[in-house]
Formats: sequence, structure tokens, C-alpha cells
Amino acid sequence: MAIVVQKFGGTSVADSTKIKNVAKAVIKEYRNGNKVVAVVSAMGKTTDYLVKLAGEISSNPCNRELDMLLSSGEQVSISLLAMAIQESGCPALSMLASQIGIITESVHSKARIVDIKTDKVQKHIDTNKIVVAAGFQGITIDGEITTLGRGGSDTSAVALAAALKAERCDIYTDVNAIYTADPRVVPKASRIYQVSYGEMLELARVGAKVLHPRSVETAKQFNVPLRLRSSFNLEDPGTLVVGDDNMEICRPVTGIAADLKQVRIAILRVPDKPGIAARIFGALSDNNISVDMIIQSMEEDHVNNIAFTVHENDLNNAISVLERVRQEIEASEIVVDNNIAKVSLVGAGMVDRPGVAAGMFDALSEAGINIKMISTSEIKISCLVAKEKVEEALRYIHKKFGLDSKEPQPGEVSN
Amino acid sequence: MAIVVQKFGGTSVADSTKIKNVAKAVIKEYRNGNKVVAVVSAMGKTTDYLVKLAGEISSNPCNRELDMLLSSGEQVSISLLAMAIQESGCPALSMLASQIGIITESVHSKARIVDIKTDKVQKHIDTNKIVVAAGFQGITIDGEITTLGRGGSDTSAVALAAALKAERCDIYTDVNAIYTADPRVVPKASRIYQVSYGEMLELARVGAKVLHPRSVETAKQFNVPLRLRSSFNLEDPGTLVVGDDNMEICRPVTGIAADLKQVRIAILRVPDKPGIAARIFGALSDNNISVDMIIQSMEEDHVNNIAFTVHENDLNNAISVLERVRQEIEASEIVVDNNIAKVSLVGAGMVDRPGVAAGMFDALSEAGINIKMISTSEIKISCLVAKEKVEEALRYIHKKFGLDSKEPQPGEVSN
Repeated sequence: MAIVVQKFGGTSVADSTKIKNVAKAVIKEYRNGNKVVAVVSAMGKTTDYLVKLAGEISSNPCNRELDMLLSSGEQVSISLLAMAIQESGCPALSMLASQIGIITESVHSKARIVDIKTDKVQKHIDTNKIVVAAGFQGITIDGEITTLGRGGSDTSAVALAAALKAERCDIYTDVNAIYTADPRVVPKASRIYQVSYGEMLELARVGAKVLHPRSVETAKQFNVPLRLRSSFNLEDPGTLVVGDDNMEICRPVTGIAADLKQVRIAILRVPDKPGIAARIFGALSDNNISVDMIIQSMEEDHVNNIAFTVHENDLNNAISVLERVRQEIEASEIVVDNNIAKVSLVGAGMVDRPGVAAGMFDALSEAGINIKMISTSEIKISCLVAKEKVEEALRYIHKKFGLDSKEPQPGEVSN
Repeated sequence: MAIVVQKFGGTSVADSTKIKNVAKAVIKEYRNGNKVVAVVSAMGKTTDYLVKLAGEISSNPCNRELDMLLSSGEQVSISLLAMAIQESGCPALSMLASQIGIITESVHSKARIVDIKTDKVQKHIDTNKIVVAAGFQGITIDGEITTLGRGGSDTSAVALAAALKAERCDIYTDVNAIYTADPRVVPKASRIYQVSYGEMLELARVGAKVLHPRSVETAKQFNVPLRLRSSFNLEDPGTLVVGDDNMEICRPVTGIAADLKQVRIAILRVPDKPGIAARIFGALSDNNISVDMIIQSMEEDHVNNIAFTVHENDLNNAISVLERVRQEIEASEIVVDNNIAKVSLVGAGMVDRPGVAAGMFDALSEAGINIKMISTSEIKISCLVAKEKVEEALRYIHKKFGLDSKEPQPGEVSN
């Protein structure tokens, strides 16, 4: 019998009716003859509610106590889901991360998993019980409760699947598949039935919000087949995410996505001396600020402009860090551009096809859209454009690369 | 440095403002130079909300999953209280029962504590941290989460105080002291500054709702001084509950209380044969129905009437059990009286003073109140009266035994 790990997010277990619905998805897999481990997040808005409560007590609550507080959320959802499964006549039990033995490093609020004990879960599924496991949470070897941070429950599910040598890990969400573009923006977006880890990673990083990059990375590392599925349509096969060797790479472009949460920061007239870039990006990194696109342009003799993008949430922090650096390196000015959107084209096949980047620039040119910044990787090209142009940009690029669906797919556009 | 265990119930931590208030009570004790362990229940109506959620999933949820669900409540309150204490500048950390090692028997929903590990808590308080411990919950040696049932958090606190050899255990509640009678019913009720475990147990059993009998029993067993205090008036010394040898027994009567939740069941014309009473009360006990007052009266030749009281919640269950028994023992009829209240007089000194019972009957006679049933123990006399007469009965008895306060005590009447 194969082991299947299923993961259900907060919106899938937002109320008792939805929990009963999730129970159906779990039981369907179980009745198919599989051993099933269901990983669940906290119900709907629980985490927001708990964070609000903490905010009423302290403007800066300590991470250890926040982890203690937030991890109560999954304890509610796992017990309710176990009850719902039992109510349908199947044996089930809920397990906390501390009971399973999901061991993390001793860091609060964004711990990484270092080990997963499988003996207790294995014992229960071997006696035909469905195990309902708490996502998002872990425990240190000293018995301290931790949480995994963003994308935590997806990561819990993939790591459990890897540890249990599961046949696959199904991530249930409110969309039914990965598309070549967001169907709400590009109505002719086509659905993708299979995608490689690498492509999925780039798609997730450039703004496709369906799977968190961290869980895809873990799946890639342990070669766990991931399946994205809809919790509202159990018959839909969803999208399978697998290793490159499992599929023929026949398409230069997998899909496109946009990210509207970036801002561009430019540091003007930076003296051209060794170590300057390291000084700037080292200071940002020391303050835990991730930088995305970076461009350095030669302005005139021995003076550069350096521009890059950061997430809008990091902007204020970045500016205060950079102002100190600017004075030290004697740059003239820091300029911020909020009116940007990053449009990206992803495809594992583009590395061998030199025309892809040119095609993207052509499409934007045909649309009359100005490109503010360009960055490329082996399987991705990103362009910054003005925010108000982003939807038009997506549609032109989508059409240019022949991604438009041949026929209307009314049933497949996700809500 | 002495260890003080404090316990705060759900109403004391019902919202963030109240939690900050509780933090003040904890810090006051800590700044007095004590090592402090604060035991907390779930916030206000959390338990009711969780039970309602479970009810939407299943009409009969399994106790293991209910314990998993309900124990999430204290996880929220302990982390918030720890944050509130930290916010005031004192070091604190929250601990779950599983982290402390509050080991219970392997029974869900009403487990009894079998052992408490003290090493981790002791380590933290020895480094001057305030430990905020989850009440109501426990863990089995197999790592299963349990709850302690009614009065659970009080019991957690007293058991922790016993295990840590604490100087005393302070139970904070919404009344400021124990009174000779409920001040809402008997305005002249006097406050009691010190009471013995035995008297407190009888007072709790006969209807004084302030302390749960189970926690008083545990305190008596391990000789832990208990102090009942108000969380809204930290200057009030409250009422101290201690062993008999700690106090002079100078009063025949400690206080009076009423219980309006009992119903009387009478089985009429029971054949007078050996083993009949065992048959009746054995059947009730087998069905987990507690019986309070029992009276057997000889009716006529070889036929008895047997009457007793049960809690109104157990009535339907008791009737169905008793109907089967009635047929077997060939009794004629079962009669139920809902219109009763039990008025009780408690005092460790009454065992040596034969006039106490007579005084109580006198008082009721003077009030023109009919006595439906009488039962006595070494330190308690209870009479059943009609429900509508109960307040008058309390006031007459209170006056008869000189319990009336000599002067009005406007500040001391609890809300």
C-alpha cells in the first residue's frame, strides 16, 4: 500500500462545513487503498485573530511566546478534522508536531525542519488509521515549540512525505491547477498538467502564489512528487510537479506571472571602487532584507548607478540601512520607485533557445510598454514595467509565446 | 525564597485588558521576593466556543480528540499572559502540561494527575523566571494529551504547589473571600478569614461554588495552604484554607449554603429484604450517578420507602436506570420532587455541640418552613425545603447561629 500525504490550507478548513468537505477528500484517498496522512493549517482567519490578541498585549511580543500562541491554531483544526473523519466511520487520530517528532532548529517564528521521526505515524497508518498532522509547527530537541514561518504547512507536508517515503504529496488549495498565467488577468491562460520543480520554483518566485517556493525546494531535494489539487473538485487531476527527468522538456516557455509587491531602489553616483557592491548588499543581507533584481550601470568616469528591487514590506527598513551606507560610500542620492511591477517568463526550455528574451521584449514593444529594468536567469526572464501596464504586458507576452488556450475553458478558471 | 503558586480562572483572563491585570497580580507576588508559578485556564468563553465547533462536526465526538481540541485554549492564555508579564519588564515563559510533565492516567476528559515532574519548572524559577503554566491539561506517559475535567485548573494549581513544596497556593477568582452565607442572599453574611479543609470541603459540597471540592481535597491531602483571593482587589487578604491543626476551632458553625440543583426521587413500597439498597444504589453508581442525601423510612410491615437526591442533570438517566430496578425489586412506584432546595449548615465544631441540629430545626420552624428531608454528617446538617423558601431559610438560620455581621460591610460584598 502506498502512502499519500495530503495538505489542506487554512481556507480549506475555515469552518465546520469545509472541514467536513476536507474529510471527504481524505476518506476518498483512504478508500482508494492508500495509507493517508493529512496535514492541516489553522482554520481560516485564526492566525490573524491570535496575532491581533498578541498585539493588544505587546507591540513587540517575544517570538517564543508567539510560537506558543500561534501553534494552538492547528491543534483546533487537526482535532476537528479527526472528529469529522471518525464521524464518517473511518479510524483517525490527530497528532501535534511534538507528538510526531517534527524536530526543528532552535529558532522561533521561522525554524527549519532538521529531522522527522516516522515511527509513531508509521505505527498508526500501519494499523489502518488516518493520521491528521499539525502543519506549520515543530519542536526543538529541548521540547520548545517552534513554527516554520511562511509556507510552513506546505513544508511540513512535503517533509513528512519525504520522511515517510510517500508516493506523492497532494497540496489542496482553492485553485484547481497551475496555469500559464493568472486566469483572472489572462482569460486565455492554459492549464498545465505537469511541470518540473525548477519551473515551478521560478513560477513561485516570480509571483505565482499557488505553491510556496520553500515546499517546492524541499520536494525537489527529496524528489517527492507534488500534486496541486482543488479541495472543491476532487475529480480534477490538478497539476503534477516532478523532477526534470520525469518529463520531456518540449516547451520553451512554461508560464508567466507578475509580482506587484516589489519596489525599486536606486543609489545614484556610487564611486566605482572594489567592495562597494558587497558593502551595500552585505548591509541589506545583515538586516534580513532580500534583494531581487540587481542592475549596475556605468554613469560616467568612475561613478555607477546601482538599482535593485526589494519587497515593499522591507522598504522602510532598507532605506534606513542604505542611508547609513550611502554616507559611508559617498554616493549622492537614494531614489525609490513605487510604481513598478515585475513581469516574468519562466521555462526550463529557454536555456537552449536564444530567441525567448528577444520575443519578450518584442511583445512589450508591440504593446507600447516601456521596460524599466531587465534581469535573467537560466530559466527565467523578468522585466520591470509600470504598475498600470502589468495586465496588458501579461496578455501580450502570453499571446506572443503561443500560450493562449485554443478553446475557451470556462470550467477551469479558478475562483 | 518561597514558592507561591497562583491560579487564575477563565473570567480573570477573558480579554487582553484582564490578562494585563492578572500580570500585575503575578508581578506583585514576584516583586515581593517570591518565586512564582501562575496557573491559568482558557480565556473566558473559549471552551464553550470550542465545544460548539465540535458539536457542529459530531454529536458524539471522541474524548481523545475533544481533549486535543480543548487543551488548545490554555495554550492561548498562557502565551498571552507570559507576553503581558514580559511587557512589564519581568522575565517569564509559558509552559504546557506536556512541557512541565503533568502526568495523568490514560483516561480522556477527566484524567487524574498521577505525577508532576518538577525539574524543568524548578530550573526556570531558580533562574528568577516566572513560569506561566497551563491548567486543566495533562499528558499520559505515552504522550497523549488529556484534560482533568471539572475543577481541573484549580487541581493543576494545587498539585503543582504540592509537587513544588510551595509555601501556599492562591486561587484568584471574582469574589474576595468565603462568607458565612452567599452575601447576595443573606446581606448580613460575615466574611471568614480562615477555614479548615474539612469545613471548606463541606461548604463546597453543599453549594458554595467558590472552590472545587477536588482541589480542596488535593490541598488537604498534601497539606498545601490555599488562599482564596480576588483578582480585582490585590490588597484583600482573602480567605485562607488550612489544616485543622493550624487553627483553633472556636466556632460551632462556619457557614451555611444552599444547593438548588438537586431533585428528590422516592421509591415507594420497597420490599424489606437484604441487599435491596445495594441493588438500587449499585445500579446508580454503575451509571456514574452520584447520590446525595438518602433516607429510608419504614412504611408498614416489611415495606419501606427509600428517598434520595441526585443532581438535576442526572435525573433522566437516573429514572431510566431506576425503572428497571423497580420492576426487579417489585417496588410500587417512583416519585420525583423537583421543588426542593438543600440548605446546609457546616462547622467543624458542631460534632461536640449537640444543640446545633436542634437550633437549625428551630430556625426553620420559626420561619414556618416545612422540612422535607434531613441528613447529617459529623460537620454538616442538611435539610430539604421547598425551593421558594430557600432564601428565607438561609436568613433565619444565619441569624439563629449568630453569624450575622455586627456592622454593615458594604465593601466586602462580592459582585
